[in-house]
Amino acid sequence: MKLSNLKGTKDFLPEELSKRNYVVDVLKRNFTAYGFQEISTPSIENSETLMGKYGDDGDKLVFRILNSGEKIKKADLESFKKKKFNGFINSISSKGLRYDLTVPLARFVSQHQNEISFPFKRFQIQNVWRADRPQKGRFQEFIQCDVDVIGKKSLIQEIELIGLYDSVFSDLGFKDLTIKINHRSILTSVANYFGFHGKLVKDFITIIDKIDKSGISNSYDELAKINSDISKKIFFDLFESNLVKLETIKSVLQNSEELENGFNEIEQVSQFFSKQNKLTNKLNFDLKLARGLNYYTGLIIEVVAQDSSVGSLGGGGRYDELVSLFNFKNVSGIGISFGLERICIEMDEKGLFNKDFHAKTDILIINFGLQYLIQLYPLIKSLRKYGYNVNIYQENNKLNKQLSYANHHNIKYVIIMGENEMKDNSITIKNMRNGVQQNKKLMNLDFKDIFN
Amino acid sequence: MKLSNLKGTKDFLPEELSKRNYVVDVLKRNFTAYGFQEISTPSIENSETLMGKYGDDGDKLVFRILNSGEKIKKADLESFKKKKFNGFINSISSKGLRYDLTVPLARFVSQHQNEISFPFKRFQIQNVWRADRPQKGRFQEFIQCDVDVIGKKSLIQEIELIGLYDSVFSDLGFKDLTIKINHRSILTSVANYFGFHGKLVKDFITIIDKIDKSGISNSYDELAKINSDISKKIFFDLFESNLVKLETIKSVLQNSEELENGFNEIEQVSQFFSKQNKLTNKLNFDLKLARGLNYYTGLIIEVVAQDSSVGSLGGGGRYDELVSLFNFKNVSGIGISFGLERICIEMDEKGLFNKDFHAKTDILIINFGLQYLIQLYPLIKSLRKYGYNVNIYQENNKLNKQLSYANHHNIKYVIIMGENEMKDNSITIKNMRNGVQQNKKLMNLDFKDIFN
Repeated sequence: MKLSNLKGTKDFLPEELSKRNYVVDVLKRNFTAYGFQEISTPSIENSETLMGKYGDDGDKLVFRILNSGEKIKKADLESFKKKKFNGFINSISSKGLRYDLTVPLARFVSQHQNEISFPFKRFQIQNVWRADRPQKGRFQEFIQCDVDVIGKKSLIQEIELIGLYDSVFSDLGFKDLTIKINHRSILTSVANYFGFHGKLVKDFITIIDKIDKSGISNSYDELAKINSDISKKIFFDLFESNLVKLETIKSVLQNSEELENGFNEIEQVSQFFSKQNKLTNKLNFDLKLARGLNYYTGLIIEVVAQDSSVGSLGGGGRYDELVSLFNFKNVSGIGISFGLERICIEMDEKGLFNKDFHAKTDILIINFGLQYLIQLYPLIKSLRKYGYNVNIYQENNKLNKQLSYANHHNIKYVIIMGENEMKDNSITIKNMRNGVQQNKKLMNLDFKDIFN
Repeated sequence: MKLSNLKGTKDFLPEELSKRNYVVDVLKRNFTAYGFQEISTPSIENSETLMGKYGDDGDKLVFRILNSGEKIKKADLESFKKKKFNGFINSISSKGLRYDLTVPLARFVSQHQNEISFPFKRFQIQNVWRADRPQKGRFQEFIQCDVDVIGKKSLIQEIELIGLYDSVFSDLGFKDLTIKINHRSILTSVANYFGFHGKLVKDFITIIDKIDKSGISNSYDELAKINSDISKKIFFDLFESNLVKLETIKSVLQNSEELENGFNEIEQVSQFFSKQNKLTNKLNFDLKLARGLNYYTGLIIEVVAQDSSVGSLGGGGRYDELVSLFNFKNVSGIGISFGLERICIEMDEKGLFNKDFHAKTDILIINFGLQYLIQLYPLIKSLRKYGYNVNIYQENNKLNKQLSYANHHNIKYVIIMGENEMKDNSITIKNMRNGVQQNKKLMNLDFKDIFN
């Protein structure tokens, strides 16, 4: 039997994993410094928790888990024959793999509302699964890194999350990313101005979301099919440039409370990060930023790299209604997500992994048999306690073979105890980079200064 | 909708998770110091990889994942009607959730044999899933922490893994655990002596495995049902005491190469950890130690706490044949596992979490509105960079309310900038433990010495 990992999944070898772990460490350090606390939720959730939250297309991408044991006998063959496949699936599956971390958070906050305090500032770094068609750079299992605040709405949360984005990315070495912001209230007002009301607002936002990918003309044509009255000139004035000013929008649209609110938030956030609080990366208002997900209601955010093959490195926004789906009313939420795989790809391409994070062997212990190793073991133990990564050569082989193993694996020091050293209770330390050997008595050995 | 997490799974709130993370950190630090490198494998594996490795009972506990989209239409209703449920399941599911980390390791090593070097010393800390009936302390999703060496067989590996167990547990504060060892060769010889040969050896080992739970008399009776010739006196001589000596066994059994080999390994290991290499915890040979899993072939290990509600804290052993199941011949394997949940329960009961690992807020920033926070933000940023966990109070509330929030959440310092401080560009730092307030100019503020 010669088997591989499943298509759409990925094995991580030590070197690649150590890069990913480095990024996760930077994330965690920043999350904690900003006052967020880590939680974890199960990979498997009840179907009722998962289904109906991601739209029809999303629901189809939830991995469903078969009921175990005798329960499989309850398969509803009638539904199957009538081609009611959802009914069939529900008869044999009552749970599924988590599709994102936001819906489980909403479930968690509702369930544990009496055990946590609000505002609840949590982060979560866990796998999610999506039955997408596997393709390059797109996996069915991947890690999400989410930071959310659940509680009363307050603009300091928007500000803190933008500050956190900048802090994480500048710690990782990114200096010229763009943190784009927009506001769903502004987009709604623009939609209304062009004659898109009620449920059509969602369609308008979805079409705006595509401008960056398929061009402004295509989006215009698509909108004009729904409402032929839409003014091409004004539409292009608003959406052609990356840097349309708030003033331009204000001059076009009639004022409303909703619009005013969106403008105020964008302006206050922009003002906060001017002068002494300038970010390392750029912060830009971008009217074309729409974010696909339905549940956003306020400020939306996305981080993009220029000239990048991977697109967005993260995104998020405020969602006022999501938690109330789980019967916990009157709390708002805001969250951002970090795209770990994409961040790693981008760092690789930009050469930002400038150190080798791979925990390598520092010292190789030459193996001339257990009778020698038994004498050396107290030293080995001390070296490990002191923080060195120490490996014992696999078997009692010729010295040359063991030394060339050290060379091949780029191990800087070897420690030798053979017959001669055994006699006078000493060791030989060889620096494999420069070939220098020293003999040291084991008694009162101060190993702190024998490696340098 | 008011929903809970699935039965058999667990939400981790910040405090409990921080304990678990602390234990994982100790594990990782030790694994790395002993020369092991981390890998990760996908949660989902092909059914062919998973099935047939854990015995019939194990196979039933593998969570199977439904094929997505159109593939559900291939459901084999004929098999279902004929009550051939496995055929039915295989027609709608071609993958499942990982049941342990050892089988995926064997698959990984076979698949990536040209990208890794041998001996391959890896560790892996990931979730596994088992469709066990949920009960107290037994979950359907839990973390396994596994350390394995794949490559040529060498007794230094057995020694290193025992040393690693002791090092990890003594770092965690355990001083009186027992690391039990036994050898499958010795158990096989004993089985042969009592007339259990061939496939019956497995039954013998399974029954021995139950002595500690259900008593020696029950095990004797069960064996006597299979072979009535078994001598009760000799059986009790061998298995009644926890500390039967190797000499006793030798005096009973006829010598054989297999037995000799088992004795030698046990003796060399025991000798290694005598005198200067004495372990912090106890190392005991225990003939009753059997380990349930079929794939062990050599030395077996288990770590047990005395007077404990949780039983074994970890176990492992040498397995010679497992990797060859994946068509990669002539390599042996040896591995140990750490039972993370049980270790945490045991540490809680013994009070070994003597520190509070929960990353709490160090400093609360009083919020009198954005116009003040905008002035304070450079300081906030510096404090976070310096390692403090800093939280900004949610909203512009009365000072008393904000101070009592700090008290309630046990936050030691608050930083205040109100109108007065704004005027002379200063801050007030209040130590909530002793009530001492200091006013400091922001210019050239050296925050390194304002907290102590």
